[in-house]
Amino acid sequence: MFNRVAIVGPGLIGGSIGMALRKRRLASTVVGIGRREVSLRRALHVGAIDKATLSIAEGVRGADMVILATAPATYEGLLKEAAHALRPHSILTDVASTKVGVIETIIAALEARPDVAYVPTHPMAGSEKQGPLAARADMFEGAVCIITPLTNTFPNVKSVVVDMWKALGARLVSMTPQGHDRLVARISHVPHLLAATLMQLVTEDEADLSGGGLRDSTRIAISSPELWIDICRENRQQIQIALEEYIKLLQQTADCLDKQDFNRLKELLQAAKAKRDRLS
Amino acid sequence: MFNRVAIVGPGLIGGSIGMALRKRRLASTVVGIGRREVSLRRALHVGAIDKATLSIAEGVRGADMVILATAPATYEGLLKEAAHALRPHSILTDVASTKVGVIETIIAALEARPDVAYVPTHPMAGSEKQGPLAARADMFEGAVCIITPLTNTFPNVKSVVVDMWKALGARLVSMTPQGHDRLVARISHVPHLLAATLMQLVTEDEADLSGGGLRDSTRIAISSPELWIDICRENRQQIQIALEEYIKLLQQTADCLDKQDFNRLKELLQAAKAKRDRLS
Repeated sequence: MFNRVAIVGPGLIGGSIGMALRKRRLASTVVGIGRREVSLRRALHVGAIDKATLSIAEGVRGADMVILATAPATYEGLLKEAAHALRPHSILTDVASTKVGVIETIIAALEARPDVAYVPTHPMAGSEKQGPLAARADMFEGAVCIITPLTNTFPNVKSVVVDMWKALGARLVSMTPQGHDRLVARISHVPHLLAATLMQLVTEDEADLSGGGLRDSTRIAISSPELWIDICRENRQQIQIALEEYIKLLQQTADCLDKQDFNRLKELLQAAKAKRDRLS
Repeated sequence: MFNRVAIVGPGLIGGSIGMALRKRRLASTVVGIGRREVSLRRALHVGAIDKATLSIAEGVRGADMVILATAPATYEGLLKEAAHALRPHSILTDVASTKVGVIETIIAALEARPDVAYVPTHPMAGSEKQGPLAARADMFEGAVCIITPLTNTFPNVKSVVVDMWKALGARLVSMTPQGHDRLVARISHVPHLLAATLMQLVTEDEADLSGGGLRDSTRIAISSPELWIDICRENRQQIQIALEEYIKLLQQTADCLDKQDFNRLKELLQAAKAKRDRLS
């Protein structure tokens, strides 16, 4: 499928992509680009990459596919260094969990390289863990991968990216960057803030007495605050809208208790259960 | 440990108690009392009980330990039928997930039987599933069991109940009924309402695109709305207090976004993560 794939940031997600590509023999060479030698050694050790380099310009050279898998805040600086070295007519993709702002940044950074096709994606997979040691070749099997193609992207270029994710086992869904950011605010970012707020409500002693319910519903609060602050910054407006809507719904639930309207509350709980039952 | 244990409602929790008692040979006979023959047959089939009966008076006769494991709303009616048949100086316990109201009900129902010792408990274990087919002998291993003893309970009677739960693997914690109801509002009832409200926010199509985060944080919304309505009714005041506190905290989180105070937000996320990291 590919001759040379460059993975910028072969950590949890980037490393899993590399591992999956290598396992399925979809690339002759997978090059990992990182800032820290120890991480790159780990990525090599777990079989996420074939080669490693600290230099992004060196790493992307000759790659037909470049995958940005570092924190979005690093994209601008990295592309500044890498833009001149990108192979003519190569494809660039990213895996950032917000899209509108990231796309603006990347388009601007690639201004001098109109030959390079940028196809934004967001694989909806992961773990609370980080780094190449948590990478898994089956990370994307059955996972949703959202693609938010630019309007000027050639269909055959888009297909290359779609086919790569499909080969890794993902279910592809296409939408606009705005639609994506609204969606993830609702199904991922707000749930994270709710879990973090719940951990503020309970004391350590109280949490210590809890059963599986609290544990399950706050598991996402384990993930990196740094990563989440970046997400909150990038997707602030959509998160605010969704959070406001959530607070209104929660106020309705509180009103049911206040008015002792248990029929209405039961309807709400039943509707919630019915919707949740459909998820596996 | 016991000669005859009567389990009123050998479903998920009651059935798990029976199974665990039988597996550990802690009772010569475990009698299951139910309303439906099919459930009792299942309880017998999975080894949760030795004998079954549809009559509570018959079931509790001669039992040194009676365990109420049906919905709390049924306690009053059941004890009306059973009070005269309880063995002199036997012990009664319940497993209800709220305590203040339940204790009032049971004390009133036992007014004519001052010889029967009532020791309220709440094993913090369970599952989204219901019924004897979901019962497990190891349900209480490592689980917290809260005991809210009445002030006039003899220590040796309390010990019998404590020792039973310890033998089943539970970690016993003693507190007042009021303390219990406040605690469970915060670590269990409010989390459930948050999850149910989150399932109201997202559409089915949105939920279908979600990763593990939404699934984990809404898993508790699967459990029975009927059961939860009973809980909301019983523990309304404490839930209202905790929910109000939660909404205030969530409003603070929303304010951080509004003011773009990402330093403060990061502190909140870090504190939440640190607290969550301590839970397994």
